[in-house]
Amino acid sequence: MGRHTLEYPKTKDNTVRRHNERAIYALETIHNLINSSQLLDVSFNPPDSPFPATLPMIGHMGSFDRPSADLGDPLGLYLHGYVSSRMMNVARATNKDKDKSEGGDEQQEQGLPVCIAASHVDALILATSAFNHSYNYRSVVLFGYATLVEDDAEKTYAMELITNGVVPGRWKTSRQPPTKAEMQSTSILKVKITSGSAKFRDGGVSDDKHDLQNEEAQNSVWTGVVPVFSSLGEPVSTTYNKVEVPANVTDFIKDYNNENKEYVLSAIKK
Amino acid sequence: MGRHTLEYPKTKDNTVRRHNERAIYALETIHNLINSSQLLDVSFNPPDSPFPATLPMIGHMGSFDRPSADLGDPLGLYLHGYVSSRMMNVARATNKDKDKSEGGDEQQEQGLPVCIAASHVDALILATSAFNHSYNYRSVVLFGYATLVEDDAEKTYAMELITNGVVPGRWKTSRQPPTKAEMQSTSILKVKITSGSAKFRDGGVSDDKHDLQNEEAQNSVWTGVVPVFSSLGEPVSTTYNKVEVPANVTDFIKDYNNENKEYVLSAIKK
Repeated sequence: MGRHTLEYPKTKDNTVRRHNERAIYALETIHNLINSSQLLDVSFNPPDSPFPATLPMIGHMGSFDRPSADLGDPLGLYLHGYVSSRMMNVARATNKDKDKSEGGDEQQEQGLPVCIAASHVDALILATSAFNHSYNYRSVVLFGYATLVEDDAEKTYAMELITNGVVPGRWKTSRQPPTKAEMQSTSILKVKITSGSAKFRDGGVSDDKHDLQNEEAQNSVWTGVVPVFSSLGEPVSTTYNKVEVPANVTDFIKDYNNENKEYVLSAIKK
Repeated sequence: MGRHTLEYPKTKDNTVRRHNERAIYALETIHNLINSSQLLDVSFNPPDSPFPATLPMIGHMGSFDRPSADLGDPLGLYLHGYVSSRMMNVARATNKDKDKSEGGDEQQEQGLPVCIAASHVDALILATSAFNHSYNYRSVVLFGYATLVEDDAEKTYAMELITNGVVPGRWKTSRQPPTKAEMQSTSILKVKITSGSAKFRDGGVSDDKHDLQNEEAQNSVWTGVVPVFSSLGEPVSTTYNKVEVPANVTDFIKDYNNENKEYVLSAIKK
């Protein structure tokens, strides 16, 4: 990696302990993985339960203050949700506390502590011993403080960012501008990231020496890799649609399928 | 649903609030979704951090006391991990507390509070307005208390369950029996489930009336669904493999691909 590569500092939260040779702290890799995840698992602690609660949400990394920022720059995470949801209510209460508090506790000032996780499974690794079975995967985790976005311009920026994260260019090719009701009923959470890390597993089967030398096992157990692909199918138009499938949709489907297939197959050979 | 269908009770943890018509509390549906997820996001609260921590883990629903139990019966969740990992250490400490405590607090007696989440994205729903964009998806969440499995027989039961969850029949067709070192270096967490719920979104685009009547929008915005498929590719044998790809692997690949494709396409038509 180049000397300008920014990395998240290793803290007790994000430091990978098991198989730390697989850990990646580079902002670019981590942000890229978040942006290529269709869903993010967002976890927070409700005030009235012993359990953390996890919600699947759609999100994208960005910077409202510097929209031209690169993926490798420090960025925030914008999450899309609904005003009625439990998490938004907790974040709203946290925002209120923040407004009220002068020198209140650190947590309330910063927002709701959240953990964001996403993973892609790229292959099943079937070894001689069940205990050496594994997956090729790419996983990512981010930690940070979530607050509700109150500013309409920042909210619109985030909605455009998140919509284009689902299909590039979709925002401008959907009905514009947003209605007042749409803006009011939609809530956006912004997560200020404190740390993060990614973990990749690639390659093929990794068998123990004693299993490789175990003739009986090698004569009876099939060992190998089963690739796992994620792909997008042919678009299905609504019955009332009057428009040809646009190039940004067909290009995205093609790129998505090629990139995923290439990555999965090349990762096996590493 | 039949009158014998068991459901998780609705608590403040698992009750679906937004789009509650999409909620499912039936044990069978929830357990089936957990078992068909290649990775589970397991969240817990480390003692020394404001943030919940999420780890991707492999797991499967089962009952050691009644191995013939159906998917719709009350079951535990077995999770596969490593002795060195942060979560196992917390669970181990919790186990110790449990041993020591006589009338200690409820949480320590029950184990480590965890939240388990998994989701499948089945389609991108591209509506006229960006605000009506959605996914078809199946998501599931479980809450419960995790403890370390100490008994060797139960550990072996769980390893077989989890291995067969990756590829049906894989345990018996891999090298047997486990070595002592394998048993010692592997940790299994058992989660006693307190509640859970699932949430499904299927169907096509759901546009607002004012957008359907907006001629300019309907003449310029493409609306439709892009299916998202998960599939398994051709198995790639190791260079030293001497065995034909067994039927349980080839059958699994075929079934996995057919079932996923059929579900995704039929869900769009609902």
